[in-house]
Amino acid sequence: MSFAALWESLLPVGRDGGTGGYRRFSWTPADAECRRWFFTAAEERHLRADTDRNGNLWAWWDPPGIVDPGAGPGAVVTGSHLDSVPDGGAFDGPLGVVTAFAAIDLLRERGVAPSRPLAVAAFCEEEGARFGVACLGSRLLAGAIGPDRARGLRDRDGTTFAEAMTAAGRDPAAIGPDPGLVAGIAAYVELHIEQGRALADTDAAIGVAERIWPHGRWRLTFTGRADHAGTTRLGDRRDPMLACAAAILAARGAAARQGAMATVGKVIAEPGAVNAISSSVTAWLDARAPDEAHLHSVVERVLAQARAAATAQGVGLDASQESVTPAVDFDAALRDRLVATLAAAGIPAPVLPTGAGHDAGVLAARVPAGMLFVRNPTGVSHSPAEHAEPGDCATGVTALAAVLADLACS
Amino acid sequence: MSFAALWESLLPVGRDGGTGGYRRFSWTPADAECRRWFFTAAEERHLRADTDRNGNLWAWWDPPGIVDPGAGPGAVVTGSHLDSVPDGGAFDGPLGVVTAFAAIDLLRERGVAPSRPLAVAAFCEEEGARFGVACLGSRLLAGAIGPDRARGLRDRDGTTFAEAMTAAGRDPAAIGPDPGLVAGIAAYVELHIEQGRALADTDAAIGVAERIWPHGRWRLTFTGRADHAGTTRLGDRRDPMLACAAAILAARGAAARQGAMATVGKVIAEPGAVNAISSSVTAWLDARAPDEAHLHSVVERVLAQARAAATAQGVGLDASQESVTPAVDFDAALRDRLVATLAAAGIPAPVLPTGAGHDAGVLAARVPAGMLFVRNPTGVSHSPAEHAEPGDCATGVTALAAVLADLACS
Repeated sequence: MSFAALWESLLPVGRDGGTGGYRRFSWTPADAECRRWFFTAAEERHLRADTDRNGNLWAWWDPPGIVDPGAGPGAVVTGSHLDSVPDGGAFDGPLGVVTAFAAIDLLRERGVAPSRPLAVAAFCEEEGARFGVACLGSRLLAGAIGPDRARGLRDRDGTTFAEAMTAAGRDPAAIGPDPGLVAGIAAYVELHIEQGRALADTDAAIGVAERIWPHGRWRLTFTGRADHAGTTRLGDRRDPMLACAAAILAARGAAARQGAMATVGKVIAEPGAVNAISSSVTAWLDARAPDEAHLHSVVERVLAQARAAATAQGVGLDASQESVTPAVDFDAALRDRLVATLAAAGIPAPVLPTGAGHDAGVLAARVPAGMLFVRNPTGVSHSPAEHAEPGDCATGVTALAAVLADLACS
Repeated sequence: MSFAALWESLLPVGRDGGTGGYRRFSWTPADAECRRWFFTAAEERHLRADTDRNGNLWAWWDPPGIVDPGAGPGAVVTGSHLDSVPDGGAFDGPLGVVTAFAAIDLLRERGVAPSRPLAVAAFCEEEGARFGVACLGSRLLAGAIGPDRARGLRDRDGTTFAEAMTAAGRDPAAIGPDPGLVAGIAAYVELHIEQGRALADTDAAIGVAERIWPHGRWRLTFTGRADHAGTTRLGDRRDPMLACAAAILAARGAAARQGAMATVGKVIAEPGAVNAISSSVTAWLDARAPDEAHLHSVVERVLAQARAAATAQGVGLDASQESVTPAVDFDAALRDRLVATLAAAGIPAPVLPTGAGHDAGVLAARVPAGMLFVRNPTGVSHSPAEHAEPGDCATGVTALAAVLADLACS
């Protein structure tokens, strides 16, 4: 099956009829359909597919003549994720999974077989869109988050990760680190659409990841006093919306000053009535910077300005860190090998940093990990307008096949 | 039945177990329970209860010996509403309805009977909490909103007012002005908890309304471009959240400058992901001022600053007026009569303006209307902390009974 046919078979799943964006949230019907799609793709390729205890999907191409199929030792894994942000694009995640299957097809067309186990993986809840912690499946696998904390994470309706897993027919009691599976992996290479414009103005369709900026999420809850919008004198008000607005503007200012990123994309006002002063307003701050020192400097500045605004409005501020992911420097030897392999295949591939987190960044703490980026002509991501050209996607398949041939078939 | 017993029988309906606030939204199960409570209270008093074509409730005490029961001519109506804002207080609305029934009890205890039709009314969707237009039931009755527009109003789940009415067993095809019912009303007097602190520092438990400030609601939708929060350079962003934050702060500034009120209590960010720049952010502006000139001056200033902020961020702004209610000067003769009646009953009652809209304000365009306010010691309203002292509520019953005796029983 061609890349295009496989790609198109996934396109309708979880797509909003209005915006064209995706809502593929973990353990929802759209997620179940993505999982079925994965198992069908594996079956069509005679790959041995299973779901690990953390809800991640694996499709194994065992080397010829192996007696006791398993994850290792020395396995080469590629893949990405199938879940999306709310109203996300088609490429972020799925491109890496579809390309992985298509690269296997290409190797087989060329008569190449693996000399060690080769797997396609699709990690669970990479976006953190439903339960708030990004890369949850790979974090659980790698032991980077405790199973109790993961089980207790709640979506916006109050459903826990454990409840959602159970409803989807999985056993939440079994989640947690899987050192045996991890120990069998010799290398993980993730292909992903670029989420910026570093390649857009170059001749290169493919990039190789150098490092991931450190990043984190903070929740800022401003608590004031609900009151009537028409009768409460301005001086008597304790309006948390005003403090929140000041904090949103402060975040942009602090990021600009330090060459960093800071974004508030989610705000919830309670009770949310047009004619009532809010009782509380919660804003989520996403911050990223070239290094930890700049990241913490940016966040400290935002929190200081948020506290000052809260004091000025007579409201309380509860700020909590939801997650912080340190900088990730991808394995230098693997990175150099990716660059050399692509150069030998005639594919120019500059080395780039990125501000986006990935499962590859989580796994890099446990196994040699690397990433390939596919050019994004507009840089737009996490949006229905996210796009990569078909020719660049085809180059991604060729590039990934060359990498897998080098790592797993030689 | 005493005021207290009647009051307590309504308290549990639609109350949130966590906050203690109310979620009595039109045509929901909580609303149906409020309506059953109203019919039970009417039945216990042998009042003739019905629901008018716009979903408003009426309980009629017909004068002795009348042959053809009807709404008029010369009817005296009192009442208020039973719906709430999200997480609202117990008093806003229900105090006027419970007090009305208790005042009838008091008149009967005294052996007083009406010489003209006397009714208790509870108007539908006064808060506009579900369908966005305040005083919807009284507006429909008075012809102040077209039935087609009302039928098409949608709640946040997309359900129309017509669909919600139908689901509740009412016929939305029948809604619209009811000139016959309106023509039969000689006076409407609404008792309501005060929503500010004008009475709090005085010896008066009761106030009489002078006028309602003009007020309105505007919806401001800032449209930018969804994008990845970690990879999109600040200069490449079109982030509507920043323009919205600037507009929220501008609203407070403009109101303070003009002695007006401006509040943003409801904000919806789309898609609402922590790690995505918003595609759009909508904020609702509630504005009120002592007169129309000041109101429009405040709103014009807010919109100008919102437009400037949108331009600065490269985002679009669509601003639309959802409703504007002109100033209401309550009927001067009725107001003077209320003051005189209360003075004769030994109840001091200062005359006060208010920034809050009421069904009495809508009906004032069609019939002589007036209002009594019951003291609010903190001024807090639209909040679970909203409160009036039992002694002040009892004075409210005495005051309303005196007014009804004067208007309907003499």
